[in-house]
Amino acid sequence: MSLLAVGTVAFDAIETPLDKTDKVIGGSATYICLTAANFIDDLKLVSVVGDDFPNEMIQEFNNRNIDTQGLQIKEGEKSFFWSGRYHDDMNGRDTLVTELNVLADFCPILPESYKNAKYLMLGNIDPNLQLSVIEQMDSRPEIIMLDTMNFWMDITWDKLIEVIGKIDILTINDEEAKQLSKEHSLKKAANKIIHEMGVKTLIIKKGEHGALLFHADGMFFAPAMPLEVVYDPTGAGDTFAGGFLGYLAKTGDHSFENMKGALVYGSALASFCVEKFGPEQLLAINESDINNRIQKFVELMEFSL
Amino acid sequence: MSLLAVGTVAFDAIETPLDKTDKVIGGSATYICLTAANFIDDLKLVSVVGDDFPNEMIQEFNNRNIDTQGLQIKEGEKSFFWSGRYHDDMNGRDTLVTELNVLADFCPILPESYKNAKYLMLGNIDPNLQLSVIEQMDSRPEIIMLDTMNFWMDITWDKLIEVIGKIDILTINDEEAKQLSKEHSLKKAANKIIHEMGVKTLIIKKGEHGALLFHADGMFFAPAMPLEVVYDPTGAGDTFAGGFLGYLAKTGDHSFENMKGALVYGSALASFCVEKFGPEQLLAINESDINNRIQKFVELMEFSL
Repeated sequence: MSLLAVGTVAFDAIETPLDKTDKVIGGSATYICLTAANFIDDLKLVSVVGDDFPNEMIQEFNNRNIDTQGLQIKEGEKSFFWSGRYHDDMNGRDTLVTELNVLADFCPILPESYKNAKYLMLGNIDPNLQLSVIEQMDSRPEIIMLDTMNFWMDITWDKLIEVIGKIDILTINDEEAKQLSKEHSLKKAANKIIHEMGVKTLIIKKGEHGALLFHADGMFFAPAMPLEVVYDPTGAGDTFAGGFLGYLAKTGDHSFENMKGALVYGSALASFCVEKFGPEQLLAINESDINNRIQKFVELMEFSL
Repeated sequence: MSLLAVGTVAFDAIETPLDKTDKVIGGSATYICLTAANFIDDLKLVSVVGDDFPNEMIQEFNNRNIDTQGLQIKEGEKSFFWSGRYHDDMNGRDTLVTELNVLADFCPILPESYKNAKYLMLGNIDPNLQLSVIEQMDSRPEIIMLDTMNFWMDITWDKLIEVIGKIDILTINDEEAKQLSKEHSLKKAANKIIHEMGVKTLIIKKGEHGALLFHADGMFFAPAMPLEVVYDPTGAGDTFAGGFLGYLAKTGDHSFENMKGALVYGSALASFCVEKFGPEQLLAINESDINNRIQKFVELMEFSL
């Protein structure tokens, strides 16, 4: 199954209470693609970088069957750069630097071979660009999943609502769900987003507190794996999304029952992501590591009465 | 099976963002006993009230086979009174009034018929009193479970550590687990509390984010049920404890596997508690309500890959 992912490919510099990095590879599309590549071998990346972006990383993408035809490389320009510092509890963070660089006038352009992808993951970027990608598709993907954030709710509300009306699965965090729905209770928020905004499936990410799946057929919860050390939360939400949609694409089953498994896989992949800086751990794990982690989730969640 | 519960029986006045009450019945032992009474019919209450405490409530206890021989009634004195205001997110709260009254010089005295109880629930009171109850038992209960809070860590650390060394199951919230272990990560906190403090089983309560069970044989998680409205969180932790230990006492099975079920039952009962002010909802529910709620938990947690 083919999966097209649009989002950022970038550099991040990260400070946590435990450690700090200079520039490491980051970006929503990076995490989505590296994760989904564990499930499927027909991945298409749409993004933009400057000529400072390392060829070795593009090679890494290609080695994992991630098609980079749609990755624009702007000569003489610099890649998007974000720097942030996490708070002591690792839940909040402050942005230290945002240099848009190539992202400032990015227009996603889909190569012909991308336009019939069956799964579309719209990573967290400007809703105008997310909409442009949908419009360039020759056929409506079977599943369109969208990630966004409070920033876009603050500055491009109408366009965000427009693109949300065209998708199947929305993934946002708990505070964003409250902001989007203007409701305090997550359950009320979910009802409103599903019944009034045309989203069929809503995933509310709660970071270390797990993730909730809301669907016309029911509600399901997957915990985050308790870890001895959370090293760097950057990219965990994108990794989660890549794992969720990657699993749906691999299995080809879009039922609520199968989405429960996808939620567990997304959570399992995210639990690797936070174990090291940037995408380092995602680049290191293999199928057996994932299966072992899934087994730990089963043990954490399974019970009988 | 016989279960002895010690804790407070009191009046609370509560303000939430939604509503406020005058004095309603409260107290840790109240919630514990009313909840455990859904599982077993040999419950023994140890606490103290003033002569302002309504006879009707004592009758309610007795109607539910809760033995109140150990409930001291102090003539001419007033019951313990607490008043608090919850923050907008319902997670934090400020204490407005604490009137110890009869609690100021409370000495639990166990009637002879209490001294061979098989299960002992030490609700959140002064660790000196918790210790005194253990010392009055004729035989060591099969399971001793203890609830406590940051207040006792701040003012009677040594005595708290002493009583923790004598119990089987400790239940505290996430912040308290961090304070008790001096660790940031809940997993590290749990390892330390289990391996260095002699607790066999640790339950970390995370309020609306669920509860974690740590045991030598593994780790298990139960979510909180997402509700449209959380009306009043007061007593949810005590209700959880009463449900957990009540289920263990009913089944008589203290294995890790069975404790998973107990964690789900504790969470289910707590989800009722928060639906109305004080113990109102706990007094209203029946076995069928509980079974229906348990089924909702199964749906929320069960998946197959």
